[in-house]
This record gives sequence, C-alpha cells and structure tokens, in this order.
Amino acid sequence: MISQFIIRRLPRYYRYLLQLEELSVESVSSAQFANAMGLTASQIRQDLNTFGAFGRQGYGYNVRILKSKISELLGLAAEKKTILIGVGNLGRAVIMYKDFIHRGFLLCGAFDVSAEIIGSKIGDITVQSIENMEKYLKETPADVAVLCIPSVAAKDVVSALWKCGVTAYWNFSHYDVKNDYPEAIVENVHLNDSLSVLSYEISRN
Amino acid sequence: MISQFIIRRLPRYYRYLLQLEELSVESVSSAQFANAMGLTASQIRQDLNTFGAFGRQGYGYNVRILKSKISELLGLAAEKKTILIGVGNLGRAVIMYKDFIHRGFLLCGAFDVSAEIIGSKIGDITVQSIENMEKYLKETPADVAVLCIPSVAAKDVVSALWKCGVTAYWNFSHYDVKNDYPEAIVENVHLNDSLSVLSYEISRN
Repeated sequence: MISQFIIRRLPRYYRYLLQLEELSVESVSSAQFANAMGLTASQIRQDLNTFGAFGRQGYGYNVRILKSKISELLGLAAEKKTILIGVGNLGRAVIMYKDFIHRGFLLCGAFDVSAEIIGSKIGDITVQSIENMEKYLKETPADVAVLCIPSVAAKDVVSALWKCGVTAYWNFSHYDVKNDYPEAIVENVHLNDSLSVLSYEISRN
Repeated sequence: MISQFIIRRLPRYYRYLLQLEELSVESVSSAQFANAMGLTASQIRQDLNTFGAFGRQGYGYNVRILKSKISELLGLAAEKKTILIGVGNLGRAVIMYKDFIHRGFLLCGAFDVSAEIIGSKIGDITVQSIENMEKYLKETPADVAVLCIPSVAAKDVVSALWKCGVTAYWNFSHYDVKNDYPEAIVENVHLNDSLSVLSYEISRN
C-alpha cells in the first residue's frame, strides 16, 4: 500500500520522465531528478524505493524502465471505457485533451440534455440524449463517467450511473459523490475552489 | 497567518453557506455544518475560530455573516483584472464558467496565436494576437493571467507577462511557473495528473 502523498507525486514524476525520454535522455540521477521536481534527492530516492525502483550508484535511474514502472503502477496502459455527461465547452475540452487517451481513457459515449448538442460529434462519437444513457450502459458497460454537468443535475445522473455499474467518476461538478456512494472512486476537479484560493493569495499580497 | 489547510477548506465552506443562503436558511450549528462537510463539529469550530467566527451557544452560526466573513477573507469581492492566454475549448470553458465572475475575476483581454481564433469573441472581449499582448499590458495592466496553452509555449509567455507586471497565474499548462519565478502567485490545475490518480485508483480495484 503506497501512501496517497506519493501517489499524488507520481504523475509529475511520470511527466518529467516522458520529457526526458522525448529528449533521448537515458538515465537521470536522483540529484537531477530532485532539482527538476523542487524536492531533495533523498525524498526522490525514498519515493521511488517504496515501489522497488532503485537507482544504480554512478548510473542513476534508467529513464525508460522507471517510466514504465510508474506507468504500470498508475495503470495507465489499461483501457478504461469512459462516457462523458455534459458536452459543453468544458466537457469537450477535457475529452479532446491529448493526454486523456494517453492515460488509457477511451471515450465510448457522450450524453447531453440540450437538443442543440444531441446529434453533434465529439471526436468519432455522436452525442446522445441523456434519456438513452441507461439503455446504452446496459448494452455497453463503462468504467468511468466524466461529469461536466451542474451540481443540481449530478445527483440524479450519478444515481442512474451507479445502478448501471459505473463506479469511477472524474467529477467537475460540485456534487459530493463520495457522500452518497462511499465506495465510489472519485477524482474531483473543483475549478472554483482553485479560483477562491488564487483570490486569497492575491488579496494577501 | 492562517494555515494552507484551512484556506483550502474555506472555498467548500463558502459554497455550502451560499447554498444555505439560497434556501433562506439563517443559521447553522457546527454539528450540521460538520455533517455536510464530512468533518467533526470540533474541526469546524476550530477552523472558524482561527479567523474570529464564533457561533452562539444554542443559535449556531449566522449564515449571512459567516459567508461574508469568508468571502472577505478570500478576497472574493475585490476585482481582479484578468487576461486569458489560449482561447481553445478549455480557455473558453474556464472563463465562461459562471463562478469566474462571482469570485471577482474580470476578463479584460484574451490572446491566441491561431489566425482562426484571433478576431473571434469570448463574452464581450475580442481575441487579439499574442503579438499584441505586451503592448496591451503596457496600456492596460492586468492582475492575473489564465494560462490555457501548451507547456512549451508557456515559458516564453510567462517571461513576457512577468516583465509586464503580471504576478498571478491560474495555470492549466504543465510549465512550472514557481520554478522560474518563486515570488509568483500560482494556482495549478493539472488535469492529467488528476486523470493519472484516477487511473491508479481504478487499477487498484
């Protein structure tokens, strides 16, 4: 069991290793690594040791091997069937984001309530009415739902999704999924909380 | 000086109080408050005490007063002149987000490199070429830049912004602003790190 703190740092490590690989760098010392991450070399070594990645004295870490170890740990290669609920600007932006597919998330279906949006395309996918969602999921199970809908709508939508066996959520709404479904897997992205903290930092200066 | 942990919880408290106010609820006990937040009543009391908000025995907290206290602390009412760099789907989504203006962020200018996007509208604002950015900022100083651009472009853009006196950033790129400008005020929203953590949680189940 790896601590949540380390798990939250791994995506950054992964991005750094990706960049090194693109630049054909084959190995990296814990000192270089630490410098790039703004951490100490001993912290980097500790973090990587927890999942059995050991650098070699005088050689450092092999970039390709370390990258694939982290990728495996994060389950990035595993295909995760994903549906999008709410195909506004935000929904389109997060799905069309190139890293979405690179993290193993595959968009299989998209749903909206607006007559203007239903029938339009997002990538290869045609947006369906939210009324088709349950029927769709019975035929085509999904692992993950991306929620780009208002909080007021989210409660009912998640109730339907949960019944259809969708247990993981990338949640941009303010609806607290975990409160109603403690076993759900949820990553919240609360944009306005981030804005409030930014506002605080600005007002302090 | 209030701890970062409390600051990060305040936006949620603020959202909860907003909802209560919309429902015409006048007061809330620390027990109710705690229940809604998934915390203990003593934690809520401790957090609120740090900035001098004291509930009254048998009455609880006055919703309106507590809400405005938190709003003041977060500097939400202060107008923050904001420019957007990168007017793709993501840029449009985060700016048109209704809470953007409710948190005191006022969009004054928007810039892009793409000929197709330059000249288009975002709200009342006409998107300008990024080449005009420095000239624009000399005439119209801004407090905050929202960065919805690729990391490779962000380094040069931030260098120009910093020279023009923009010191606060809502950063959706992976460029590490703090690394080059330690005094900068930065809120990072790293969508693909969030996805990586979600991927990890799914793969563990």
